[in-house]
Amino acid sequence: MDQSVKTLQHIASALVDAGKSLYARGWVPATSGNFSARYDHDKIAITVSGRDKGALTPEDIMTIDFQGRAVDNRKPSAEALLHTVIYTHFPETYTVLHTHSINATLISRLNNNELRLSGYEILKAFDRISTHETSICIPIFLNDQDIARLSHKVVMYLENNPPIFGFLIAGHGLYTWGRSIQETLRYLEAFEFMFECELKLKGYDRV
Amino acid sequence: MDQSVKTLQHIASALVDAGKSLYARGWVPATSGNFSARYDHDKIAITVSGRDKGALTPEDIMTIDFQGRAVDNRKPSAEALLHTVIYTHFPETYTVLHTHSINATLISRLNNNELRLSGYEILKAFDRISTHETSICIPIFLNDQDIARLSHKVVMYLENNPPIFGFLIAGHGLYTWGRSIQETLRYLEAFEFMFECELKLKGYDRV
Amino acid sequence: MDQSVKTLQHIASALVDAGKSLYARGWVPATSGNFSARYDHDKIAITVSGRDKGALTPEDIMTIDFQGRAVDNRKPSAEALLHTVIYTHFPETYTVLHTHSINATLISRLNNNELRLSGYEILKAFDRISTHETSICIPIFLNDQDIARLSHKVVMYLENNPPIFGFLIAGHGLYTWGRSIQETLRYLEAFEFMFECELKLKGYDRV
Amino acid sequence: MDQSVKTLQHIASALVDAGKSLYARGWVPATSGNFSARYDHDKIAITVSGRDKGALTPEDIMTIDFQGRAVDNRKPSAEALLHTVIYTHFPETYTVLHTHSINATLISRLNNNELRLSGYEILKAFDRISTHETSICIPIFLNDQDIARLSHKVVMYLENNPPIFGFLIAGHGLYTWGRSIQETLRYLEAFEFMFECELKLKGYDRV
Repeated sequence: MDQSVKTLQHIASALVDAGKSLYARGWVPATSGNFSARYDHDKIAITVSGRDKGALTPEDIMTIDFQGRAVDNRKPSAEALLHTVIYTHFPETYTVLHTHSINATLISRLNNNELRLSGYEILKAFDRISTHETSICIPIFLNDQDIARLSHKVVMYLENNPPIFGFLIAGHGLYTWGRSIQETLRYLEAFEFMFECELKLKGYDRV
Repeated sequence: MDQSVKTLQHIASALVDAGKSLYARGWVPATSGNFSARYDHDKIAITVSGRDKGALTPEDIMTIDFQGRAVDNRKPSAEALLHTVIYTHFPETYTVLHTHSINATLISRLNNNELRLSGYEILKAFDRISTHETSICIPIFLNDQDIARLSHKVVMYLENNPPIFGFLIAGHGLYTWGRSIQETLRYLEAFEFMFECELKLKGYDRV
Repeated sequence: MDQSVKTLQHIASALVDAGKSLYARGWVPATSGNFSARYDHDKIAITVSGRDKGALTPEDIMTIDFQGRAVDNRKPSAEALLHTVIYTHFPETYTVLHTHSINATLISRLNNNELRLSGYEILKAFDRISTHETSICIPIFLNDQDIARLSHKVVMYLENNPPIFGFLIAGHGLYTWGRSIQETLRYLEAFEFMFECELKLKGYDRV
Repeated sequence: MDQSVKTLQHIASALVDAGKSLYARGWVPATSGNFSARYDHDKIAITVSGRDKGALTPEDIMTIDFQGRAVDNRKPSAEALLHTVIYTHFPETYTVLHTHSINATLISRLNNNELRLSGYEILKAFDRISTHETSICIPIFLNDQDIARLSHKVVMYLENNPPIFGFLIAGHGLYTWGRSIQETLRYLEAFEFMFECELKLKGYDRV
């Protein structure tokens, strides 16, 4: 078995496991969300459109290139282009997770343009952050069914701003990415933790 | 084994599994809720009255006809008539799920007549909806222990309004339906997701 | 093996299972709560004091008589007397569950003397209730470490009021009972469902 | 196999199990938190820095001495010094659990200097407390990435105040300890129970 096939199998299995875990937490309900992971340098394994993320099988993972074109004849996730934009802009990226939690939806409806998170010890979950005395910015883009147009907005943002660890699409969900599935899951947990804190603090008028 | 028996067995098994999953999420507590699925063209498999939905066995699934009459001598769910109304009005329907979650109960006590949901990406979970820039209506009927009278109100509503994906009975719960158990579970997850969002947004005076 | 031993084994096993399930929902944290079930006419199987309710074994279940005295030389739950009061007053009772959930604690701190629940379809979970158009009363007793004194207050209440399905001890938890473990678990689920609804409605000033 | 090795294996296995359980409840997300347990009189088994607490293996547990120095050549948790401070000040301590829950984070951002808990029956989960009519104090220290400085503050507090069962670091989490893993888990559950109650009561302006 050649190395690229082996790698795809390994990646597909890891995405299936991630799907089970994220679905169980309610972060990818009703077939929402999509996941991808890079392999073999220039190929991207991504979830097929419309699958139940809590019941993925390796057959629900397909391959696209860096332009978002299907390598086989299946239909990739509608938002494949947003994944490729991230891989292109952040060359270290090996995994992109797009989730669709209640908290991500709420926080993107209660904030405009961006969310700023500071003072949390859990910020240290992110690469190169070693203190709670810092802040990170999560831009919030208006939702748009024209993914090419939305991707263009994201590219414009990325090219004109400091690096970020994730972004929100209003009423829709979170994109986050990292150098491995494990790192990206850690980022996702840290984001969801702070979203929940921010929403609860807002209830006490403290945010 | 003839086809209809095989189909009933398959359907009963799927309803048992759905019960376990929905009970675990707290959506059918204290023997509440009832599920049905059509098979063999004109038969409806439905949960027997009063069973624990988290511990169903295939023996807890019985058969009724389109008039809600038991085909065997067991007592169907008290609300069987509401199921048959849906199968009759929406001939594509193959599954009806009636759940009884805290959020469905709350949302039906905090809203009158109807709930309108708009702007959510997750609206795309519903058939033929391809954008968040739309809204759906969930009518809310007053609870009534006279199921014939309540069913009549539902029929009147359905005959005089655009198609819907589900309805609420105040202080009681949600009915939703689809062309398969899988589709209906997807609708249910999407509804529950938006109910939770609406309830939380209302806490911030944003709905 | 004589019948009484067999019955105790069966009951102990059912209480162990109930403990696992109730602990997993967070209703008996930190060794709180206690469970009992009657067997062999006049014996009461009850959890030994201070055990982790999520990790019970049959050895954690002991026997007391209707006066709350240990039949073996182990120490019964400190609140055994409250259990025997219930078995004595409601002779049909075969199970008593005392749980200690966050919602039971909160609702007993936010209400005085009694909680009234009405309009909920789930009220039909209780014996002989066939409509949501009724109300039930849950008395709330002040917490007291003198269990004999507290039991006396409960007896006085029971002798001078219409029958109830459960009572709260403020800042402490719920007692509910029924003719079987299954029925009592159903009551418990229905109570917890309505406690959660009431607490959330209170947040909107609707209770 | 000599006794100390056997003891370390036993302790490591118990910490692995605790990690799975606490991670599943969301109390140690995104590799946060750290756990330790004393063995062989003067050795402390502690989680290696940066590991996923929901997926620990015995290899993720290392040994330090009472000065927080690694006995092998791995890097202990950044906060090892806070653990040793506790073992030194409370010689009966055999386990220290540092968790990082949403509620601990929130409560430490909504309160200054200390949190006082009273009136809860669950206070009896703590050693030598036999009534709800008491109160316990949880000091809240400002978060500080200089662990030596933070440890010094904790030592100063401990030397000048009555004994405590745990302390909070603002925006960061809880430290609690006990004479066994079982006792410390019981304390942790009791703390988290009361944190949730306090946060919800604050929402009703009752705390």
